[in-house]
Amino acid sequence: MPIRVTIWNEFRHEKKNPQVAEIYPDGIHNAIGNYLKKSKDFSVKTATLDEEEHGLTEDVVANTDVLVWWGHMAHAEAVDLVVERCYQRILKQGMGCLVLHSGHFSKIFKKLMGTTCDLKWRADGERETLWVTRPGHPIINNIDDHFVIDKEEMYGEYFDIPEPEETIMISSFAGGEVFRSLCTWRRGAGRIVYFRPGHETFPTYHNPTVMKVIENAVRWSAPTPGPTPHTYGHRPTGWVDAKK
Amino acid sequence: MPIRVTIWNEFRHEKKNPQVAEIYPDGIHNAIGNYLKKSKDFSVKTATLDEEEHGLTEDVVANTDVLVWWGHMAHAEAVDLVVERCYQRILKQGMGCLVLHSGHFSKIFKKLMGTTCDLKWRADGERETLWVTRPGHPIINNIDDHFVIDKEEMYGEYFDIPEPEETIMISSFAGGEVFRSLCTWRRGAGRIVYFRPGHETFPTYHNPTVMKVIENAVRWSAPTPGPTPHTYGHRPTGWVDAKK
Amino acid sequence: MPIRVTIWNEFRHEKKNPQVAEIYPDGIHNAIGNYLKKSKDFSVKTATLDEEEHGLTEDVVANTDVLVWWGHMAHAEAVDLVVERCYQRILKQGMGCLVLHSGHFSKIFKKLMGTTCDLKWRADGERETLWVTRPGHPIINNIDDHFVIDKEEMYGEYFDIPEPEETIMISSFAGGEVFRSLCTWRRGAGRIVYFRPGHETFPTYHNPTVMKVIENAVRWSAPTPGPTPHTYGHRPTGWVDAKK
Amino acid sequence: MPIRVTIWNEFRHEKKNPQVAEIYPDGIHNAIGNYLKKSKDFSVKTATLDEEEHGLTEDVVANTDVLVWWGHMAHAEAVDLVVERCYQRILKQGMGCLVLHSGHFSKIFKKLMGTTCDLKWRADGERETLWVTRPGHPIINNIDDHFVIDKEEMYGEYFDIPEPEETIMISSFAGGEVFRSLCTWRRGAGRIVYFRPGHETFPTYHNPTVMKVIENAVRWSAPTPGPTPHTYGHRPTGWVDAKK
Repeated sequence: MPIRVTIWNEFRHEKKNPQVAEIYPDGIHNAIGNYLKKSKDFSVKTATLDEEEHGLTEDVVANTDVLVWWGHMAHAEAVDLVVERCYQRILKQGMGCLVLHSGHFSKIFKKLMGTTCDLKWRADGERETLWVTRPGHPIINNIDDHFVIDKEEMYGEYFDIPEPEETIMISSFAGGEVFRSLCTWRRGAGRIVYFRPGHETFPTYHNPTVMKVIENAVRWSAPTPGPTPHTYGHRPTGWVDAKK
Repeated sequence: MPIRVTIWNEFRHEKKNPQVAEIYPDGIHNAIGNYLKKSKDFSVKTATLDEEEHGLTEDVVANTDVLVWWGHMAHAEAVDLVVERCYQRILKQGMGCLVLHSGHFSKIFKKLMGTTCDLKWRADGERETLWVTRPGHPIINNIDDHFVIDKEEMYGEYFDIPEPEETIMISSFAGGEVFRSLCTWRRGAGRIVYFRPGHETFPTYHNPTVMKVIENAVRWSAPTPGPTPHTYGHRPTGWVDAKK
Repeated sequence: MPIRVTIWNEFRHEKKNPQVAEIYPDGIHNAIGNYLKKSKDFSVKTATLDEEEHGLTEDVVANTDVLVWWGHMAHAEAVDLVVERCYQRILKQGMGCLVLHSGHFSKIFKKLMGTTCDLKWRADGERETLWVTRPGHPIINNIDDHFVIDKEEMYGEYFDIPEPEETIMISSFAGGEVFRSLCTWRRGAGRIVYFRPGHETFPTYHNPTVMKVIENAVRWSAPTPGPTPHTYGHRPTGWVDAKK
Repeated sequence: MPIRVTIWNEFRHEKKNPQVAEIYPDGIHNAIGNYLKKSKDFSVKTATLDEEEHGLTEDVVANTDVLVWWGHMAHAEAVDLVVERCYQRILKQGMGCLVLHSGHFSKIFKKLMGTTCDLKWRADGERETLWVTRPGHPIINNIDDHFVIDKEEMYGEYFDIPEPEETIMISSFAGGEVFRSLCTWRRGAGRIVYFRPGHETFPTYHNPTVMKVIENAVRWSAPTPGPTPHTYGHRPTGWVDAKK
């Protein structure tokens, strides 16, 4: 059975900024989606902010294995009800959640992290070098020990996140800053991945190495196939032995 | 300078349930506060749900180094504004936060964790044995490698929390369940401690070993004295070298 | 391609103790091996202490994806050269390593952990209850939120291991002790799993739930298929840009 | 009671290389020791490779709270017996261990980590910028959110260490590499700190910010004052209740 991926994109920059529209004529979501569609391992949907319920209806979310999230200028417009729906599916059914770039400030990511997720930034289009700090991790399968993106926005530490469970890549920038660029956490039954690159004015999602990391991250964060029971609530005296 | 501790208690059970009032005639907050006041290292305040702004005014929170939190039946009545105030002080000024027992379901703890914090439970008053899993940690200073509480409520795994950064004690219960009972996390500049024991119908906060752990946890979670700058936002090209 | 599993067993108890021989007439290694052989996903070899080079020749190790290790009474007899060979393959080629029960005191496990791996124990054949503390993890795929083994040796905390990266199951014992029974760590490119049950005088490796966990652990710790370069050593000025 | 610090230095470069001797005429150990001696909080000893038992006799080690370790060209000459002595004191009595710079390849550090501790390097004297990734941690008390060292050796990822429990500073280098420069782990009752800067041909241990971090790290890794019992071995049936 293919992994059911829903790629969510704010899809506003592409409509307002001709520079962005030129790079991503069909939107960032379709740039990513078209890449994933090349493999039969994925069943790909997209959803955007201005669709009804942001395209994340109960039915869509209930049939999503991995949610990819790109947002930037309109985080506040995401309706709490929809965010809560995604959140519950992550924790309880183990939906994976891959948060990209400026999604660090999205409601869903801040809610999962429990922190402000603030950082330093500079959008001058400088060299970013990403270094592997956890060789052998499935998310960097077939990735060299580092790779370079010629022009990207700088994000700098301190990045206000909980200590990652796995820090897989760390970036340096031409200006001298560093950033934990590829990190994972678990929340409930769900696996969360943050991956830094992807400013809308640079063609980052046309970079094959970036896309390979995204593909790997989607595979890795897909839920474990079997049931993941985690019952809660009152348990009477003797139930452990009674059940045996 | 003493550590400024504010002990927050819902303080409802003590007013409604004579059994609880008998154990804690002045409330759980004062049972804990009176213990801490024996040392000159602490400057102790208390605050309760039914006070104005729950006793956690801007002034009180701005002058608190460590916040201790006990709540149970009225989590939902905690005003979001006050919770947000505590949350911001934890992340930005490094206020410590020690969450006790049924505080696992408090707004502040769930917001810091990013999870549901749900669990199994049974309030039959059974034996709890707490085992040290991180010897040498300051929070179990002067604590033996395990200790027993004769009658406590059972809390059982799965406890829906993020993987703790430090798991310091794990409990077993007479019924066969286990629980991660003493755990820490960091959020922003603040240190978070969860400590399990303390059901209101048992005299747990009169147990000297329990109180010693609480005292140690307050000491450990107090903010580092020096400044902890963590600037965010736009940084111009060349600022790192300019500043040097 | 199947996962190439080598199951290493000390294979001494089975020869010396008729009680053990009755439970495992072909040795613990074959009890585990025969289970795994039911699936075409695994290519299974066994190796034992008294074979030449303990059955872990250069060729065998170089062609192993996951090494399963059971030892108890003769840890000291493991030749350092062979241990080092396994260690290097774990760190550099990402061979998985699943250490079972009394293997906690094996040379390979202590070398990987950097600690004494000491613990409390009692071999009275008492009830062990294993509780899931990380639902959704692939290693507990299709496992309920807890399961009971009627008769097992007790292992008790403090278990002197580094803080696990993932604590997946915690046991309680009838006597009141607790133990972190299913844990993972990464060392270099390799994934390490410790799984507690399996005292030689009890039929634990005939328990289908235990065997399912072992099968899951072998799958999870297999190396990522692609290359995992992690080059070391001197790098000249300008090499990052030169390579671009 | 002051913290009893023993600063161990290989003390070979200073004798062989006039450039190093000029920077550290009394050796790196005394450069660090003289700084710490300014505070009454520390009782400082030094020890070097060419002393009997490397200056780390049973008596010295048994009376050390924190061991600082600098070594580079002669790691192999450290006698295993002495290394084992330090190792046991760390795990069992909670001696702190601060490993500096090229100490990453020392026997004691590799034994504690369980990995090769290998890395990339280039000793061209380039700019290193260290960034705080864990504000509020005691080890960076009174340190700004980053600081710059004008000339240092480069160390680059992948640094083959276990995932740190706390990653407190990350460096960038002028050449584009990154490195996890200030990290902590716990082993047994002991706290381990690795701090990167300090190549012998640069005056790094005269940099007041570097020295402040070292001072903070010594304070943080000192053992918890009370007893830290962690008993091991056989426990008879019923001992938990018997002890109560």
